[in-house]
Amino acid sequence: MTIQCPAPLHEDERVLLGHGAGGRLTTELLNALVLPALGPPPGPLEDAAALPPVGLPVISTDSFVVSPLFFPGGDIGSLAVHGTVNDLAMRGAEPLALAVSLIIEEGLPLADLRSVLESLGKAATEAGVPVVTGDTKVVGRGAADRLFITTTGIGRRIPPLHPSAARARPHDAILLSGPIGLHGTAVLSTREGLGFEADIASDSRPLHRLVHALIPFGSDIHTLRDPTRGGLAATLNEIAEASGTGADIDESALPVPGPVAAACDLLGLDPLHVANEGCLVAYIPEPQADGVLDALRGVPEGASAVRIGRTTAAHPGRVDLRTRVGSRRVIDMPLGEQLPRIC
Amino acid sequence: MTIQCPAPLHEDERVLLGHGAGGRLTTELLNALVLPALGPPPGPLEDAAALPPVGLPVISTDSFVVSPLFFPGGDIGSLAVHGTVNDLAMRGAEPLALAVSLIIEEGLPLADLRSVLESLGKAATEAGVPVVTGDTKVVGRGAADRLFITTTGIGRRIPPLHPSAARARPHDAILLSGPIGLHGTAVLSTREGLGFEADIASDSRPLHRLVHALIPFGSDIHTLRDPTRGGLAATLNEIAEASGTGADIDESALPVPGPVAAACDLLGLDPLHVANEGCLVAYIPEPQADGVLDALRGVPEGASAVRIGRTTAAHPGRVDLRTRVGSRRVIDMPLGEQLPRIC
Repeated sequence: MTIQCPAPLHEDERVLLGHGAGGRLTTELLNALVLPALGPPPGPLEDAAALPPVGLPVISTDSFVVSPLFFPGGDIGSLAVHGTVNDLAMRGAEPLALAVSLIIEEGLPLADLRSVLESLGKAATEAGVPVVTGDTKVVGRGAADRLFITTTGIGRRIPPLHPSAARARPHDAILLSGPIGLHGTAVLSTREGLGFEADIASDSRPLHRLVHALIPFGSDIHTLRDPTRGGLAATLNEIAEASGTGADIDESALPVPGPVAAACDLLGLDPLHVANEGCLVAYIPEPQADGVLDALRGVPEGASAVRIGRTTAAHPGRVDLRTRVGSRRVIDMPLGEQLPRIC
Repeated sequence: MTIQCPAPLHEDERVLLGHGAGGRLTTELLNALVLPALGPPPGPLEDAAALPPVGLPVISTDSFVVSPLFFPGGDIGSLAVHGTVNDLAMRGAEPLALAVSLIIEEGLPLADLRSVLESLGKAATEAGVPVVTGDTKVVGRGAADRLFITTTGIGRRIPPLHPSAARARPHDAILLSGPIGLHGTAVLSTREGLGFEADIASDSRPLHRLVHALIPFGSDIHTLRDPTRGGLAATLNEIAEASGTGADIDESALPVPGPVAAACDLLGLDPLHVANEGCLVAYIPEPQADGVLDALRGVPEGASAVRIGRTTAAHPGRVDLRTRVGSRRVIDMPLGEQLPRIC
């Protein structure tokens, strides 16, 4: 197969303002870099893409501003796919298509852009979700920090599933599909050169296959959420507030990897507040807990799923931690920013 | 009706990093500013929004990085709605829902954010398209230039219409729905303080009603495009290339408002290269031209629609301008950036 390309872009070249101007340079960037990295779109290159009919569409959008662009376990490209795929999955939807919009700072090395887009394309292919349309803007030096990516996903709701934060009920078991704190500490450690990045890699990965394994449990899957920004603490509190249901979490059941605990200790962070990009919490009726746990553990990304607590009618809207020494403390909604730009 | 709000945000306050952290400050920003400006979403506040079934979905995404944020005739908020609505309309689709993602520089005055979001909400309401989901990220001072907005639109293709750049044919009439050059010169003049902004306002507006008026012409509507970045020159060239059809444009028929011509003259710009945000070009068979022109003129946003030229088999893929003095010149694809950050 021969592909006719414009003059190839050289790896030592950088993004110019003109690459975002909608003219010949934009066409060249698209043909020589973006499309080879992402794979050709399923339809013609127009300002909008046509999709097959969708019975129960679900839409989610997220901007990714992570710094640095590359970190152990991923980069802004794979993260932009996983984050949006996971937001769809948490509503019980199968991802169908992605739209990708880039804001690039003038001067970004083309080699970096190529690496990110190849990673994005690979993550999309692995998740089985084509990139169907996109946009590229370039802003002058100093007007953005290298590269921001906004991904929007369209999915199809899987009919028996209709999880929602508001559907958590007293006497639900609370399950967690994997260890916490890896993504935030990996990014922070890389950015600040703290040295933990040798032992910690982001958990960034797609979770839709995990959700697919829960289809047999249908509407018993009350709530699904991936604890990203604000960490597990924010997610548990959002669910408690939306459902008016309290939660009791067992500290001893929380899977905090040793290097994460060490990093958090050094930095004065609470692992409950650190962002994750590859695990989910599931709220289901107690009697279904073992079955759901088995289903989660049957998928590689849920191999280390555990039960971390239960809901209660005793303190509506509040999340309590039962500590290792037997005391209780409230897990508060984090106020603001512990870790800027981790996603 | 009483709305329970957190402590109100004061107008002299500014966006903090913590407003993007997914914690209590994020909730406060959402409840006190974003949701009142945009109107409550049709569903619960989750990471993804469910939509009614869509038979023939169309999706489009665009990042908006215009500088300044406010300009005569609009702002980044209204522009972000119009741009995405128009990209859907140009594929013959009726817009159904918008997803909005914000990247905010720390320190942006909350009053500016509120103004932009109120304008965005107003433009969405006027276009009849709800904002169903969104995301907010905050980056540190200097890591972005105040505010970037990415809007993604979902539309439903209107069955008899299936316009595409590739469907232009020899002997099509080329129509233009309104004057050119207003948006780019309005933004540039405001940014640089050139003084033209008293006489020039952006043409930013939604074009889906104009497209709706073309439904009776069905598949005779070969091509629709709004000449944004790169101006009319880029759009005509893209269509020529995608369809392999040449075009002859009459310079005397091109509607260039006096103040736009004066501004372009002073700045050494070609009005054909200047971005527009409120007009479209339509390619239709010659025999339908008068009917389509009447239909366009029957809608306020197409009141000054004109015929600007025709397609030809004589020079496939090339766009020629027949000048006022009778000579011909090629209208080239613009190379790169004349006017950075106009959308």
